[in-house]
Amino acid sequence: MRTVTGRELKDASCEQLKHLCEELREEIFRTVSVCGGHLASNLGTVELTVALHRVFDFPRDKIVFDVGHQCYAHKLLSGRAPMFRTLRKRGGLSGFPKRSESEYDCYDTGHAGTAISAALGIAKARDLRGEDYAVIALVGDGSFNNGLVYEALNSIKILHSRVLILLNDNGMSISPTVGGMHDLLDEVKGEHKEGIELFERFGLEYMGIVGGNNLSELLPALETAKEKLKTGSVLLHVTTKKGQGYSFCESAPVETHGVDPSFRRKEYSEALGEELTALAGKRPEIVAVTAAMTDNLGLRGFFRAYPERAFDVGICEEHASVLCASMATAGLKPYYAIYSTFLERAFDEIIHDICAQNLPVTLCIDRAGVSGPDGETHQGVFDLSFLSFIPNLTIAIPKDIGEFRAMLRMSADFRSPLAIRYPREGTEGEISEVEIGKSEVLHSTSSNIVMLAAGERCLRLAEKVRKTAAAEGMDFTVVNARFLRPLDEALLSALPQRHVITLEDNVLSGGLGDAVARFYRNTEKRIHAFGYRDAFLPHGTPKELAEEFGLGEKEILKAVEECYARG
Amino acid sequence: MRTVTGRELKDASCEQLKHLCEELREEIFRTVSVCGGHLASNLGTVELTVALHRVFDFPRDKIVFDVGHQCYAHKLLSGRAPMFRTLRKRGGLSGFPKRSESEYDCYDTGHAGTAISAALGIAKARDLRGEDYAVIALVGDGSFNNGLVYEALNSIKILHSRVLILLNDNGMSISPTVGGMHDLLDEVKGEHKEGIELFERFGLEYMGIVGGNNLSELLPALETAKEKLKTGSVLLHVTTKKGQGYSFCESAPVETHGVDPSFRRKEYSEALGEELTALAGKRPEIVAVTAAMTDNLGLRGFFRAYPERAFDVGICEEHASVLCASMATAGLKPYYAIYSTFLERAFDEIIHDICAQNLPVTLCIDRAGVSGPDGETHQGVFDLSFLSFIPNLTIAIPKDIGEFRAMLRMSADFRSPLAIRYPREGTEGEISEVEIGKSEVLHSTSSNIVMLAAGERCLRLAEKVRKTAAAEGMDFTVVNARFLRPLDEALLSALPQRHVITLEDNVLSGGLGDAVARFYRNTEKRIHAFGYRDAFLPHGTPKELAEEFGLGEKEILKAVEECYARG
Repeated sequence: MRTVTGRELKDASCEQLKHLCEELREEIFRTVSVCGGHLASNLGTVELTVALHRVFDFPRDKIVFDVGHQCYAHKLLSGRAPMFRTLRKRGGLSGFPKRSESEYDCYDTGHAGTAISAALGIAKARDLRGEDYAVIALVGDGSFNNGLVYEALNSIKILHSRVLILLNDNGMSISPTVGGMHDLLDEVKGEHKEGIELFERFGLEYMGIVGGNNLSELLPALETAKEKLKTGSVLLHVTTKKGQGYSFCESAPVETHGVDPSFRRKEYSEALGEELTALAGKRPEIVAVTAAMTDNLGLRGFFRAYPERAFDVGICEEHASVLCASMATAGLKPYYAIYSTFLERAFDEIIHDICAQNLPVTLCIDRAGVSGPDGETHQGVFDLSFLSFIPNLTIAIPKDIGEFRAMLRMSADFRSPLAIRYPREGTEGEISEVEIGKSEVLHSTSSNIVMLAAGERCLRLAEKVRKTAAAEGMDFTVVNARFLRPLDEALLSALPQRHVITLEDNVLSGGLGDAVARFYRNTEKRIHAFGYRDAFLPHGTPKELAEEFGLGEKEILKAVEECYARG
Repeated sequence: MRTVTGRELKDASCEQLKHLCEELREEIFRTVSVCGGHLASNLGTVELTVALHRVFDFPRDKIVFDVGHQCYAHKLLSGRAPMFRTLRKRGGLSGFPKRSESEYDCYDTGHAGTAISAALGIAKARDLRGEDYAVIALVGDGSFNNGLVYEALNSIKILHSRVLILLNDNGMSISPTVGGMHDLLDEVKGEHKEGIELFERFGLEYMGIVGGNNLSELLPALETAKEKLKTGSVLLHVTTKKGQGYSFCESAPVETHGVDPSFRRKEYSEALGEELTALAGKRPEIVAVTAAMTDNLGLRGFFRAYPERAFDVGICEEHASVLCASMATAGLKPYYAIYSTFLERAFDEIIHDICAQNLPVTLCIDRAGVSGPDGETHQGVFDLSFLSFIPNLTIAIPKDIGEFRAMLRMSADFRSPLAIRYPREGTEGEISEVEIGKSEVLHSTSSNIVMLAAGERCLRLAEKVRKTAAAEGMDFTVVNARFLRPLDEALLSALPQRHVITLEDNVLSGGLGDAVARFYRNTEKRIHAFGYRDAFLPHGTPKELAEEFGLGEKEILKAVEECYARG
């Protein structure tokens, strides 16, 4: 798409702006069709972004995008149109705001609920430094369920800094928005205006409702908000339609929230849904809890089959965690399905509520390991590190979907906290019995090298390396290290090999390599640990990232060769 | 105190109940004077607890105490009076609710904001299992600032389970309550009753205001609430006075929130306040952020000296973290002071907001290491593990208060995220220059043993062991391992000793021992790591816990002897 200058935008007629919106929409659609990315949310906020760029003066004024998955039009309007087709590609534009990418991006986001806090902090810095610019937080209604948003709202009166909150109300998180705040917003959109008082009590002047896909409503509303912002904080309530302009997106906002053009293998999430639904038929104590991502986690079927035992509490990862813990104290068997990086939000509750009380909650940790094009905020490469030291917790890492099914079946009788971490896609594989803490020797040979690999990606990598090594006349034993906690100490003690190579789809610090090395400390064993090095992994394909950040096939093969040479 | 039976409580006259309250108050005061503990909060809730025990039927009915530091009267009324003088002592009663201690404690707490979520989960389990009992959450107004409480309120309409929320409004967190919700509650207590609508919108019937230190108001109100609870969820707004009955507590609720009868050495927090206030005089960009614990963190002076640059945002650990990150993006230099275990609440934001953006935020982590009598939920023995793998983060562990001061002075020019972790008490020590990533050799000798110790507790332990060893004719080198990240690789490479003993006031997994062992992997070095073993550490004195859980002087001396024997 052509570059649109700030001047051009300021001078354009309303007709020209509408035409620009069509151009943006087309460019977003075309690019996402090729590069993947967030479609529906970006299509929904095109007019809003154009209007913001018309009324405000970026990058002098600052805008924080909550979650950040709706920033494509902003990128296209801030000098990044020529690179837009590199979206989500290694070395190309990020799918999220990035300060390192442009001065138009003032704050990096990726997880929900941070924007109002961030806007308040920036506004406070502005005031203390005696500067003068507008600070805007663009926040979806889904995030308004999140505790962090509430904490920020609560502090507006403490901080006394003026911000404009754009509440982008499309009735959706990734799943439809739920709960008391959603009902309140619905009332506000209807005839019951008293709900507005809530915002006023928290120190915000409420403005709305404004049609967020309609420039002739948006432009004057933003001008008014800009004026009001000189004396206080404003909440402008805008309604938009997720997927606006593309009927198949409008009618399927959940399915087109994120789009992935690549060929899909089987998803672990499907197996989660199938197994949990089957188990629930036999076990009335089983319940499922999610935080606004029911479909992506494979639980649509479970929610249909057992609506009274299925709870989507909105983007409330902390609450979901305590809910599971407490249900477990009172006789239920909760399964909490969540993405790896979002589980960070429930970290204290995993320790304080689930594990300190040693409760039979199962954490189903999806998108673990490198997830790829979403970049830093979505790479699930820390979970082994932040779970591995928590007392009472068992950590399982299935080698394929069949083993994942076996672990889920086994979990039904397990009486302590259990975390199962798995990637998005995988291969089906057989379902055989899994015993807690027991590894599986997949390939046994007499060489002095054993490779302990955790999870499907690493076991595939081990297999690839083994084939290449075999062509060079080398061989090594391969173990499916499917439990990080407890470690299979019996097997480790029995392994005769001198060289132990570990592979894990996680950063090296605090993961499998460290645990194995700790077990073998002060023995004659030589440990060669492979995982991601100490860095935030940017966007790129999992293969690119693996090669660049420490889990490359060649490196591992080289280690095998060196072990062979040393004997 | 004598044991009061449930029958006795049900049959007592109002006069007898009042007398019982006096007995309870006296027993609490006497015990806390000896054992330490939470005084003001427990004195404030005596009548409320007596009234609850009179009206409800525990343990059949369930009560969840938010934070849990107000459960003493409950313990005294549920068969634990004979053991009450063992409060907070190793093997004695916990200062917090503990399921393992009594069937009257249905849910363990310690951190703020979990009670409503927990009550909802228990109530949902009750409904799904077709059981019939009342579930009550007792929550202070301070927790109503917390995002987790809001997430729970938001989900009442999703879960459709009946709970009674007792809002214990004393206007205080540990510090006075702040923010929009506080103002709203104040309005409700005044003449402006519209604020009540907020609760009704979230699916709660509002009842109040009831004088929570007045049995003749409380008893009928609880009876009514119990009746209403049969058909829906209720919020009963009760006002109490922190420290009620003891004028010195009433007039100093911050100082008497927690009471520690032991002799106090100098506190690190005092040094934090002194240094930060001094630095702020030279550096206008410095700001301080706390989450409802200004005084305990030593920042009262800073808040007085620089009120416009000091922010207590209430019990909002997540928001405080994002606020710091965003202020740093806009040119400020934020210091975020917080207790070690409460920092777990901001875990995602440390990764996602502060470290992924590589921002110059300083985390001042107080009460790190074993803190003692508060037990499982307050032992700061995980922070090294949950921080050590985060890219871009520097982790400093001062050897004494002087070095802490030096680190704070150094931090003013540091341009990346920095975590400084320290215990409550310490010795002053000299202020000398500290260079990032550089350790300090404290004692050098020619033996084949080096001890790397992190932090004041471990360095004292090292010194004790060294003296005992010296009496036996043994010696070893002692290094102040004051940076966990980056490791002092230059020093580690240069150390000639074969035996490396590490000491850390943290669980072993993911801490200093693992990092040093990783560095020395596949060398001839022998690593002997000491820290806490894989367990939740209960209440007891730090000394008792150290000896019982893996950081005992004798064990370490034994390791020295063995290293000596091996040569």
